[in-house]
Amino acid sequence: MNNGNPLERNPWIRKSSEIIYTNPWITVREDRVIRPDGEPGVYGVVDTRGATGAVAITPTMDVYLVGQYRYPTEGYSWEIIEGGTDEGETPLECIRRELREEAGLIAQKWTPLGGEVHLSNCISSENGYLFLAEDLEETEPEPEATEVLQIRRVPFAEALAMTDEGEITDAISIMGLLLAERYLRRHRDWRP
Amino acid sequence: MNNGNPLERNPWIRKSSEIIYTNPWITVREDRVIRPDGEPGVYGVVDTRGATGAVAITPTMDVYLVGQYRYPTEGYSWEIIEGGTDEGETPLECIRRELREEAGLIAQKWTPLGGEVHLSNCISSENGYLFLAEDLEETEPEPEATEVLQIRRVPFAEALAMTDEGEITDAISIMGLLLAERYLRRHRDWRP
Repeated sequence: MNNGNPLERNPWIRKSSEIIYTNPWITVREDRVIRPDGEPGVYGVVDTRGATGAVAITPTMDVYLVGQYRYPTEGYSWEIIEGGTDEGETPLECIRRELREEAGLIAQKWTPLGGEVHLSNCISSENGYLFLAEDLEETEPEPEATEVLQIRRVPFAEALAMTDEGEITDAISIMGLLLAERYLRRHRDWRP
Repeated sequence: MNNGNPLERNPWIRKSSEIIYTNPWITVREDRVIRPDGEPGVYGVVDTRGATGAVAITPTMDVYLVGQYRYPTEGYSWEIIEGGTDEGETPLECIRRELREEAGLIAQKWTPLGGEVHLSNCISSENGYLFLAEDLEETEPEPEATEVLQIRRVPFAEALAMTDEGEITDAISIMGLLLAERYLRRHRDWRP
């Protein structure tokens, strides 16, 4: 995104970087930096796997939502189909796998929604990719051992209203549903 | 969100919790847990300040975007007005302060967009609140020492198109702009 404008250059200088913590899902590092104002400081950064999300939609305009308890936020959450990329996996390979494992669905038609997204760019390098999944075939879900899931099929307009009302709180889900609405409105002339 | 459905109860058991790292912006803890499948495991959780964002819109349907280099994602990012809540600050108090500091704007009219959002609920408890800011008055920006900012005023429809095209990548900004679009469409009959 740097177009040569000096205001868009990196104003931070990294002096050193130390890994503070790592587990299979996150790595936390603390960088010693020179801040934009020239003063020394620290920047703690959380590195993660990439996130993916799919708005799986039927010809009658129903979408699949997955419900699960989210340990970090200590609450139950209804979401689009999501997953983190395994080593060597592309975002599309990841979300195809998650769609089958979590919802028991195979989609023949995939459309990217928006571009790369950053979930929390003040503290984390975590990125994500969103897709519209169509031409769905139902098979058997195969959830992971750490997942206790519920699956619901709801009208697309109802899922959108859940974002307005704060009933869907997950960022990947809100972005996916609302980008899907714009896509379907512009390319298929969909109206609720 | 627990409606008594046993499938929506917390399936994790926390055995212990240890602070691994803390700085003024994030705290990382590692919890020893019993996973939903009954096996022991660890869960690393990032706790943060709350995030806020404002879609500041003029009577002629322009929105203010703030550009800054984001250290964790190593790239330049155009965003709505955003900030993290200071100790004891409500989300609305925070975003009023940020609107004035970052963009030099005072808004007379504030409307919540959606509800509480969670930015990355697999790894972090970080939450956020979004607002529509209207009836704007321009004063002088007062950016923090760590911020090198640019401000742009762009047509709302152009900012929305930037989310479709992947030119805006920040989750708070994408959610704010798209929830604002739905709000203005439903309550003011706005059409691009």
